[in-house]
Amino acid sequence: QTPMYGRYTQDLGVYAKEEAARLREGSQRRSVSERSRTLDLLEYDKGRCAKCRICTVRCQKFLISRVGEDWIFLILLGLLMALVSWVVDFCIAICLQAQKWMYGGLDSNVFLQYLAWVTYPVVLITFSAGFTQILAPQAVGSGIPEMKTILRGVVLKEYLTFKTFVAKVIGLTCALGSGMPLGKEGPFVHIASLCAALLSKFMSLFGGIYENESRNIEMLAAACAVGVGCCFAAPIGGVLFSIEVTSTFFAVRNYWRGFFAATFSAFIFRVLAVWNRDEETITALFKTRFRLDFPFDLQELPAFAVIGIASGFGGALFVYLNRLIVQFIRKQKAINKFLMKKRLLYPALVTLLVSTLTFPPGFGQFMAGRLTQKESLVTLLDNRTWAKQGIAEEFDYISHSQAWKHPQVNVFVTLVLFIVMKFWMSALATTIPVPCGAFMPVFVIGAAFGRLVGESMAAWFPDGIHTDGTIYPIVPGGYAVVGAAALSGAVTHTVSTAVIVFELTGQISHILPVMIAVILANAVAQSLQPSLYDSIIRIKKLPYLPELGWGHHEYYNIRVEDIMVRDVRYITLNCCYRDLHDVLLTGHLKTLALVESAESMILLGSIERAQLQSLLSQQLGRPRRLEYIRERAAAEKKRLSVVSNPGSEDGSQRANHEVRFQVREATARGAHISRARFSWFFFCWQFFCSVICPLQSSPSSSLLLFYFLQIAEWEEQQLDEQVNFNNCKIDPAPFQLVERTSLHKTHTIFSLLGLDHAYVTSIGRLIGVVSLKELRKAIEGSVTVKGVKVRPPLASFRDSGTSSSENEATELHKLWDRHKSMSLPREHVPSDSDEKSQ
Amino acid sequence: QTPMYGRYTQDLGVYAKEEAARLREGSQRRSVSERSRTLDLLEYDKGRCAKCRICTVRCQKFLISRVGEDWIFLILLGLLMALVSWVVDFCIAICLQAQKWMYGGLDSNVFLQYLAWVTYPVVLITFSAGFTQILAPQAVGSGIPEMKTILRGVVLKEYLTFKTFVAKVIGLTCALGSGMPLGKEGPFVHIASLCAALLSKFMSLFGGIYENESRNIEMLAAACAVGVGCCFAAPIGGVLFSIEVTSTFFAVRNYWRGFFAATFSAFIFRVLAVWNRDEETITALFKTRFRLDFPFDLQELPAFAVIGIASGFGGALFVYLNRLIVQFIRKQKAINKFLMKKRLLYPALVTLLVSTLTFPPGFGQFMAGRLTQKESLVTLLDNRTWAKQGIAEEFDYISHSQAWKHPQVNVFVTLVLFIVMKFWMSALATTIPVPCGAFMPVFVIGAAFGRLVGESMAAWFPDGIHTDGTIYPIVPGGYAVVGAAALSGAVTHTVSTAVIVFELTGQISHILPVMIAVILANAVAQSLQPSLYDSIIRIKKLPYLPELGWGHHEYYNIRVEDIMVRDVRYITLNCCYRDLHDVLLTGHLKTLALVESAESMILLGSIERAQLQSLLSQQLGRPRRLEYIRERAAAEKKRLSVVSNPGSEDGSQRANHEVRFQVREATARGAHISRARFSWFFFCWQFFCSVICPLQSSPSSSLLLFYFLQIAEWEEQQLDEQVNFNNCKIDPAPFQLVERTSLHKTHTIFSLLGLDHAYVTSIGRLIGVVSLKELRKAIEGSVTVKGVKVRPPLASFRDSGTSSSENEATELHKLWDRHKSMSLPREHVPSDSDEKSQ
Repeated sequence: QTPMYGRYTQDLGVYAKEEAARLREGSQRRSVSERSRTLDLLEYDKGRCAKCRICTVRCQKFLISRVGEDWIFLILLGLLMALVSWVVDFCIAICLQAQKWMYGGLDSNVFLQYLAWVTYPVVLITFSAGFTQILAPQAVGSGIPEMKTILRGVVLKEYLTFKTFVAKVIGLTCALGSGMPLGKEGPFVHIASLCAALLSKFMSLFGGIYENESRNIEMLAAACAVGVGCCFAAPIGGVLFSIEVTSTFFAVRNYWRGFFAATFSAFIFRVLAVWNRDEETITALFKTRFRLDFPFDLQELPAFAVIGIASGFGGALFVYLNRLIVQFIRKQKAINKFLMKKRLLYPALVTLLVSTLTFPPGFGQFMAGRLTQKESLVTLLDNRTWAKQGIAEEFDYISHSQAWKHPQVNVFVTLVLFIVMKFWMSALATTIPVPCGAFMPVFVIGAAFGRLVGESMAAWFPDGIHTDGTIYPIVPGGYAVVGAAALSGAVTHTVSTAVIVFELTGQISHILPVMIAVILANAVAQSLQPSLYDSIIRIKKLPYLPELGWGHHEYYNIRVEDIMVRDVRYITLNCCYRDLHDVLLTGHLKTLALVESAESMILLGSIERAQLQSLLSQQLGRPRRLEYIRERAAAEKKRLSVVSNPGSEDGSQRANHEVRFQVREATARGAHISRARFSWFFFCWQFFCSVICPLQSSPSSSLLLFYFLQIAEWEEQQLDEQVNFNNCKIDPAPFQLVERTSLHKTHTIFSLLGLDHAYVTSIGRLIGVVSLKELRKAIEGSVTVKGVKVRPPLASFRDSGTSSSENEATELHKLWDRHKSMSLPREHVPSDSDEKSQ
Repeated sequence: QTPMYGRYTQDLGVYAKEEAARLREGSQRRSVSERSRTLDLLEYDKGRCAKCRICTVRCQKFLISRVGEDWIFLILLGLLMALVSWVVDFCIAICLQAQKWMYGGLDSNVFLQYLAWVTYPVVLITFSAGFTQILAPQAVGSGIPEMKTILRGVVLKEYLTFKTFVAKVIGLTCALGSGMPLGKEGPFVHIASLCAALLSKFMSLFGGIYENESRNIEMLAAACAVGVGCCFAAPIGGVLFSIEVTSTFFAVRNYWRGFFAATFSAFIFRVLAVWNRDEETITALFKTRFRLDFPFDLQELPAFAVIGIASGFGGALFVYLNRLIVQFIRKQKAINKFLMKKRLLYPALVTLLVSTLTFPPGFGQFMAGRLTQKESLVTLLDNRTWAKQGIAEEFDYISHSQAWKHPQVNVFVTLVLFIVMKFWMSALATTIPVPCGAFMPVFVIGAAFGRLVGESMAAWFPDGIHTDGTIYPIVPGGYAVVGAAALSGAVTHTVSTAVIVFELTGQISHILPVMIAVILANAVAQSLQPSLYDSIIRIKKLPYLPELGWGHHEYYNIRVEDIMVRDVRYITLNCCYRDLHDVLLTGHLKTLALVESAESMILLGSIERAQLQSLLSQQLGRPRRLEYIRERAAAEKKRLSVVSNPGSEDGSQRANHEVRFQVREATARGAHISRARFSWFFFCWQFFCSVICPLQSSPSSSLLLFYFLQIAEWEEQQLDEQVNFNNCKIDPAPFQLVERTSLHKTHTIFSLLGLDHAYVTSIGRLIGVVSLKELRKAIEGSVTVKGVKVRPPLASFRDSGTSSSENEATELHKLWDRHKSMSLPREHVPSDSDEKSQ
């Protein structure tokens, strides 16, 4: 379903070599250009203002050399993203205002009002979906799952292009401008990464360092932090959230990059607001004003814990619901077919449904439907209590808080309705194929849930719980903060939402309740469902290694030998091209193991499939075939030139027909003949038609068959030759594991080094291979089927009556015997390498 | 100087095997015990309350199985550490109160006052130093450098024992109780790790999972977070700080462990304070009350930036000063000798000096000497302005703020004196051999510096900078917060001090200034000096890999082949014991490479030195020698029993003398004879004296020589035998690199996998080895000698006229030729392994 062209990053060895080659080329190029520059300088020296020019050139050089520095890149990235974030926010605000204005202007007629209220978002969402679909379908969705996969080392093409950037930014603005329950945080991670990739490409015009792959990945990691940081003006939370969401292993030396860029970005983002006179000074985005001296009582902690646990269940439910909707639509083939035809119908229908339900004079009045997401959050984090003793209090509702008050309906009912409706609406809305995230909607729902609990507590204990002297009433806004952090933490499986919440509200007084609730929510949610991003990764079938869960001991007990594939495809050093051909036909692995010989099985390295294919095509490729045929044709010409009788068209056509029949027969017989060889027959046939037929008027089918047989013979000869690995790139140190390595360690190594596969060796002998697939299966098998294991965890111990070291020793002994028997002839022929190695 | 017994963790392969063996044993043992338990159950079944007992056993089983879960361990750890932290704080507070009480009670006589003021800390510090020295010298210092090394994979013995725990806790309490400028944060990281290690040992009585090494390291990482978390009641900052300070690569899946344990610990720590009626509810440790609506003006940012940059220089200076003091004392041999003799003199002298200078009626009155560290910090973070227009304001000084006010001296002078004096005092005090950290003193100095800048700003702009309408006066307390975070960040090279500061003060309103200052401070400090912990690591010469600095491009250009050692010690599969013997004599490496043969150099694995030694001793060890000698003796007895003449004592003694002479001569000749063999000669000689001499009265020297020659011959025979690797543990997959791997990548891999050494191979052929030493040299060489490289960065490209792939291909060709020539005999003898591998 998802357009995805994955390619795993090359293994260390190959990559290192290519990089070295590139650097070498680069240095040569540079030295050439520098030489020409010095020549220029010499010329100028004779001119008038030589010194001046030299100085200019030096300055230029210095500046260019500085451009390579990380911090310049990070500042540019931060600046760019802050601007993008601010502009997007500004446009969204204008869009939302326009909707309100239209809605407000038509208050004379409810039907017109409804039309305006509904049409506006439908148009925007449809435009967004269509625009994204046409320009870059990769821009759909949050982008965090894809970034996670990219940072894992998988190259997803088209995900980091300028087209995607434009589609994502414009699509996101329209989608959020519609007022649907969607978030901008996930897409901003993607946009920041796009920015970083594009900036990196642009900067590579100045310096060579931008072409380094590992550096680019470091920069992408920093960009993710910038994305979250400039979206919420939360530098610390942004860095932590991006680490938690995208990385498995994090290099602490990259830490400062994220902090630096995110801080700069958040700073500029807030400064823009000050310059635009929106704010007086730099403050938090959703500033709260809870009292500082007594933020909460110790006895309120159980309520916070309840919020945490409930949020955990809620978060898991949200992820489940989201997946269910996607799977339902995919499974119902009738719906799916219809929707695939009319791609824009699904977004429009969903938008219509959601906006109809939130129509303020309709059902919307019971769920504060007229508030935008931002307004709802501001009101929910309000530090006043809405209800006391169950009755709505008579304080003066400032502006938006009014929306929560309904003359007939209790504030609790409004809140419950809000939570329930927004919950499924958000889960549904995030499945729309537009650029959108789910963080902010979930955050708002969490805040509403927290507020509900807080208001209940306030109603239950009108004078607070604290008994000594002073009365400290309960602050429901604090509960809202806790709820927001807990639910968003549960959905994304992160702890750093706690930090984001502090930075968003500008108050850290509720740190302990927030931390407790977030941890509890995480504990519950992680044991029930994968995170939203992992869920999307699974739905999209992106190549990713699942995380190890919390404290599963069995990972320490499952060994690589239990999960490895023992039937490894390999090629030997002294194999012939036929073996190569067969191996390439039967397997689909991207790299093949190169062993010394089939008996010793000593692993020498790995070769990429493409390399082998090029080897084979060199041996049997068009040039060599042509050469052979030319030789044959020359010989034929010589032979036939004596009896050249220009024949009739008719005869040659009949012959052609016969030939075609025979070719078909031959290919039917030789089932092992590849498509390449089949087309080669046609090629030969064409050649014969064009070269031989003009020479010989009516080539008998037997003659043609004779030629074919000759060619086949030649081909067989070629295939029987030993492979010459001279011009072949070999990775001499593919990653190796031992058969006793535990699953836990294997997972660690795979995710650390971003491996695709690893060979399992025993004293240099290749005995198996483990790829990402096996590992994923093993982990998921042992995670999901917890009680009844798919494979017994101690399978490796069952058949090990003899200890492994003994086995090894015997193997070694055999190896050794073999060498002993061969040591005599070797001693007679001291080779060059012998001298070299000593 | 430091007692340090380092052993690198074993390589993956070896470790995996041992672990597997252990688990297997464990499961056998467990199954046996379970069988016995079921037998017990059967017996009980006949009894009365069988059901009851079965239930009990099941509950017990369930509980025990739960004990293995991580969260139980983490809760216990958090609880324990919170208690320890609280008790330590409580004791420190009592100690400090006692000093105040003594000082206050003696206010009639200044001299007595002085005596009391000075004697008290001297006694405490001397006791602390002495106690630590006697019980566990490993407890000295902060412990963070050691933890960093341990988490790197190096096992430092004696660092995680119960003795060290006791020494550290008591030593720390006494040291901090003395009122010296020392911190508890570093030691608490160590104490938490000690707790975790001891708890892990204790818990391993219940479940086997606690014996897993990688799990223990994960737990230690969590413990470090707990240490910081419960010290400052700062869970988030604690986790981040501990990650930054101790890890190079961080597994995000361990993140929750740190958060969980640190939150729980911080929670309990604060709850204890509430229960003890110190606090009304859970709040921050150093709560501030800055205004929320307008925390700072945009135009104040340059001042914050100045604080950041100045703190950067200050931090670097602090690290430099600290190292200078240590090195000065070490270099001055006279001082060093004297101090080594009287170990307690140095702490006493330093304490005397510091406490004399802070004596309140003396010089201390100009630097708020009577305030403890905590009190100073509280006053420095005060939200009122101390001075306006340069004159001390007439507000009512509550309690401690009074100390900063001096009738004659300006508040600015007091602050400057405080900063300068505390700066060198802290740098000096942290060199005292007691358990102590430097974080808190530096934090206080930073706060004072920030306060100084803030007060200056307040004096400069008495009505604030903001011009529109409302007057917002400048808050010097905010500057103090920024300064504290910046200076402590600069000294420790961390960004997370920003988070710690928010959690300590309970206010996050100054987030952007703090972040900007911290990042600037880090940028400056990191480019000037290593962090305090890295500096200590270098002083103590702990085995650690230095970090790669900020954006050094040359790391991408240096290749492994530039730094590797080409002269690798190896053993071949068909080597004889003599080679083994020679290799063991000449090298000192912990592991040796095993190659197929000297010509092919194909790497088969690595063997530990100990394994080889045991092989050699099996071949030439006492049992085999004894056996041989017994055989010889039996033969001799047979021969001599016919002519047995009991001889005189005198003759045998002369003979002994001669023998001794000859032995000496023989050993002098054979310089290559090891000590083991030399002692063996003595052994033989003793044997002859006891066995042969009683048989033969006057053994002529020539006869003895004959025996010796025979034995030597036997030995030579033994040495010429081929090594039998049957009972030898071989790591079949030691880590391999390619010669083109960049230094950057090598560093990453070494720090990721905690490697000690890696072999450099080319198509399976061993061509070099890189160990931690070479890597460290290369990194430090290219870091310190920045302009003039120790080795040219592109050395690897100079001699590469021919491309590497060509080279490889030629090598491969040779290898291939060799096999081609040997393929015939192999085909005649199809071995077992041949069948197996197909």
